[in-house]
Amino acid sequence: MIFIGERINTGFKDIKQAVTDKDPKPLQKWARKQTDAGATYLDVNLGAVSSKPEDHCWMIETVQEAVDTLICIDTNKVNILAEALKVCKKSPLINSTTAADEKLEPMMALAAEYNASIIGVVMDEAGAPKNADKRVENAGKILAKAMELGLEPDRVFLDPIVMPLKFMQEQAGQILEATRQFGLFSDPPPHITCGLSNISNGTKNKSLINRIFLTMAIQCGMDSAICDVMDRKLVNAAKTAELVMNREIYADAYLSM
Amino acid sequence: MIFIGERINTGFKDIKQAVTDKDPKPLQKWARKQTDAGATYLDVNLGAVSSKPEDHCWMIETVQEAVDTLICIDTNKVNILAEALKVCKKSPLINSTTAADEKLEPMMALAAEYNASIIGVVMDEAGAPKNADKRVENAGKILAKAMELGLEPDRVFLDPIVMPLKFMQEQAGQILEATRQFGLFSDPPPHITCGLSNISNGTKNKSLINRIFLTMAIQCGMDSAICDVMDRKLVNAAKTAELVMNREIYADAYLSM
Repeated sequence: MIFIGERINTGFKDIKQAVTDKDPKPLQKWARKQTDAGATYLDVNLGAVSSKPEDHCWMIETVQEAVDTLICIDTNKVNILAEALKVCKKSPLINSTTAADEKLEPMMALAAEYNASIIGVVMDEAGAPKNADKRVENAGKILAKAMELGLEPDRVFLDPIVMPLKFMQEQAGQILEATRQFGLFSDPPPHITCGLSNISNGTKNKSLINRIFLTMAIQCGMDSAICDVMDRKLVNAAKTAELVMNREIYADAYLSM
Repeated sequence: MIFIGERINTGFKDIKQAVTDKDPKPLQKWARKQTDAGATYLDVNLGAVSSKPEDHCWMIETVQEAVDTLICIDTNKVNILAEALKVCKKSPLINSTTAADEKLEPMMALAAEYNASIIGVVMDEAGAPKNADKRVENAGKILAKAMELGLEPDRVFLDPIVMPLKFMQEQAGQILEATRQFGLFSDPPPHITCGLSNISNGTKNKSLINRIFLTMAIQCGMDSAICDVMDRKLVNAAKTAELVMNREIYADAYLSM
């Protein structure tokens, strides 16, 4: 399971304040905590706090001073991405492109230039698809563009776009079906990830709903999630799901706690 | 979700002693506890304590004195089943037949005679199948026999035979795939159930493994389980899984605790 820690994001107050003050401590604290919790990548998101590439670069460099965990560059701005890629010490994950041409062309070109991995969210010019078929069609377009530019399928992390269960309950089945079909694109297949916390948006049982949905998604072939890696119940559920799917070698000690 | 409470079984010491002593209290205590926990059926299993039909009938009548929950008659003996069916106040569930002719013919005939529901475990003369295809083939045979005798598909609970993850880790994927295919047999489909606790047999994380597997099975179409209904985490996981699959109407209060 490739866990992408969601916590270094200016959507969280402490990170927003830290970026504003250029205080490295909160970023480095969360970099260490999420790394210790098992994060493969640390998502780094400048959000609306600033539009300056150097601020995003400062965040990444600050994280890299504390840990050598891989960076997930979370931005939808091409100019920020272009600068952020230069400061990553190891091959990062780009979060994200979509299937819309004006996003797909420049983002994928940068991914190919740096041989980076890239998340492809299966929305397009028309927005987020409402069914599995359109999700699969957009995923195919993203994957084809990657391969055209010389990126192997395992550099692509397809994201079926998770919708809140509370407001669009019928979407979960479509998302899971799309996930299952993503796994059929190639052998070995592309990675499949999602912004997990969306599923429980606005509900009272967030952690439970998150881990039940992730369990089902893992069964359908998902092998990554952008999520709260500090949620031990979530991590244990994911590890157990991989055990059931025979993707983790069995040991009574497969859980660290 | 159709929960079948597993606790009134002489495999548990207190029930074995109670049956030996003809003490109704332990049976009635578990009948009430499991009913309060949400069991639709109460499995009643005499086991090896006795081979007398009247002992199984005593167990059923004792349970029915305490609650009006449906009975699941758990026996592999035709003569016991024939007597037990006579004392059930409401249409029971028979646990179980297999696809082996010498079991299938008499068990299904009794189910049809009483218009009872029946669990069909997809093993045959050769034992438990090792792959999904053979499980589906045996399920088809069971379902065909039921329909031949006039039982509707929703009277049949197909059981894909859960194997212990610890010893046969590769089987879980086959079981889940078979479950998915069982759902395609008819519309509306037959029920699908399993002896859930088998999956975690011999492991250290029984409850976690049980609920992760059940979550995946629910996604594949399972709508019932013979299980520890007193395990609140299991029940909540199952309810959340049905919510994600859009089989339960959303409410923030969909969990009772």
